[in-house]
Amino acid sequence: MTLVSALYAGIEAGGTKFNCVVGTDPFTILARERFATTTPSETLGRVKDFFLSQASEHGEFAGIGIGCFGPLDLNPGSNTYGYITATPKPHWSQTDIAGFFSSALDVPVSFDTDVNCAALGEYHCGAARGRPNFVYVTVGTGIGAGVFVDGKPLNGIAHTEFGHILVPRDPGDTFKGHCPFHTDCLSALACGPAIEARWGCKGHELPENHEAWDLQAHYLAIMCVNITLSYSPEIIILGGGVMDQAHLFPKIRRRFVELMNGYMIPDINPSDYIVPTGLQGASGEVGAMVMAVGG
Amino acid sequence: MTLVSALYAGIEAGGTKFNCVVGTDPFTILARERFATTTPSETLGRVKDFFLSQASEHGEFAGIGIGCFGPLDLNPGSNTYGYITATPKPHWSQTDIAGFFSSALDVPVSFDTDVNCAALGEYHCGAARGRPNFVYVTVGTGIGAGVFVDGKPLNGIAHTEFGHILVPRDPGDTFKGHCPFHTDCLSALACGPAIEARWGCKGHELPENHEAWDLQAHYLAIMCVNITLSYSPEIIILGGGVMDQAHLFPKIRRRFVELMNGYMIPDINPSDYIVPTGLQGASGEVGAMVMAVGG
Repeated sequence: MTLVSALYAGIEAGGTKFNCVVGTDPFTILARERFATTTPSETLGRVKDFFLSQASEHGEFAGIGIGCFGPLDLNPGSNTYGYITATPKPHWSQTDIAGFFSSALDVPVSFDTDVNCAALGEYHCGAARGRPNFVYVTVGTGIGAGVFVDGKPLNGIAHTEFGHILVPRDPGDTFKGHCPFHTDCLSALACGPAIEARWGCKGHELPENHEAWDLQAHYLAIMCVNITLSYSPEIIILGGGVMDQAHLFPKIRRRFVELMNGYMIPDINPSDYIVPTGLQGASGEVGAMVMAVGG
Repeated sequence: MTLVSALYAGIEAGGTKFNCVVGTDPFTILARERFATTTPSETLGRVKDFFLSQASEHGEFAGIGIGCFGPLDLNPGSNTYGYITATPKPHWSQTDIAGFFSSALDVPVSFDTDVNCAALGEYHCGAARGRPNFVYVTVGTGIGAGVFVDGKPLNGIAHTEFGHILVPRDPGDTFKGHCPFHTDCLSALACGPAIEARWGCKGHELPENHEAWDLQAHYLAIMCVNITLSYSPEIIILGGGVMDQAHLFPKIRRRFVELMNGYMIPDINPSDYIVPTGLQGASGEVGAMVMAVGG
């Protein structure tokens, strides 16, 4: 048993897995574990057991930060604050995530969306450091955006869902869209599974010169145009599995400049404006720990 | 000469006219005058003369609030803070509006976009009263949105230009669009002049059962969907000349619910969510006076 001065827990709660970390600050991680997202009782039980075993080794927790897949109830005045609300993910609708860990670990819980949590990581020590007005987008299983205004996440009365905004479909694109709600939203047309469904193979199996990437860059450039006009950020950070295709960045920037067509172009080089994450896959983990320490 | 305890000036500076008011608070207006927007030296000179004549009658000004057409430089650290920057409006690019009135009247100037100014009026005593997270949209010569988050305008590093976001064009709509920059932005497809150019007559000349209004409601419903997903506001206020067509509201609400398709529907009645202005044509005037008193 190694007692530490203050112990914090962080969870990146995703639709596929829960990434859990334990540490003394965002950069000093003592333990890390992943659990499949199956049913709430099974997954939350395993996470709880992991944290309790860590507490028995290092001492009691001082706080926990949770970045969670949604939609969520983030209204502190609501009876269901801290819940996952009506999610299409089977078993998880109306699950009290924040309350479960508050009771299980007897600690203050800081709770937000997965994208806001990852954005917070990027703000504290990633690509958005020192830039309080920015947007972080993850392009993966779905598309989600964490919007920061003056250093704080923009949640409105519920939370934003920029990945579902309606966008112009490319005239030649007859793909039916990969979203259960909308045929022509960003996620429907440009998330990872949309690439796979449209072209019949995984994105990483397509060569860099495949037409798939021009179309993908076109949609992500439309997204960057609408982000610029909606939020006027200092920087747009693109992360998530699809953005591992680094060759997409110059294509997106080029198309972005074409689509803006001289209107309200931010007074900076596109290479400094549309950028990859600074923390690679660790944005969410770092963000959850920052939430735990701060919240 | 009637001296008053404190005198304030407000300007709604639009591309067609400058509406100027003088009063002791947002509801006590002593004088009101309009001047055509011609050239900066002519228009600003006339506005200055009007204000100086009012000062000679009532006493010195304690502040001025200006809501101005853009794009603007709103960065207080910039050398061109308070300027209209690169506007397509002839003569007005690089005009120092805030500086002109600061010198002319020797008063503190509060300066923001015309839509943020009108939104502020609606927040203080219109449809957004007591609702710090809201979006005010004007649908007129162009489309502009004032976004309020926690009671403050969202400007980012420049300011937002939601009226130019790219949106899905209706498949049957072959209109070329009424925007010098984008063929498929909101303003291009749904501003007042777009209605006139598409149907060959002014909007108010079209009967309520004309197909023009179904298409218009469709585009404004797309706008409300993207506002909801981008900002998660408590209320969306629609103003401007086009919204004088009150029959549009139920059409927009119905199409909005269809397009959201059950995703993230705000937990309120659409009739309470997409609403007309509370101050009718006075939102900008009231907002400018609120800025003058507060700024």
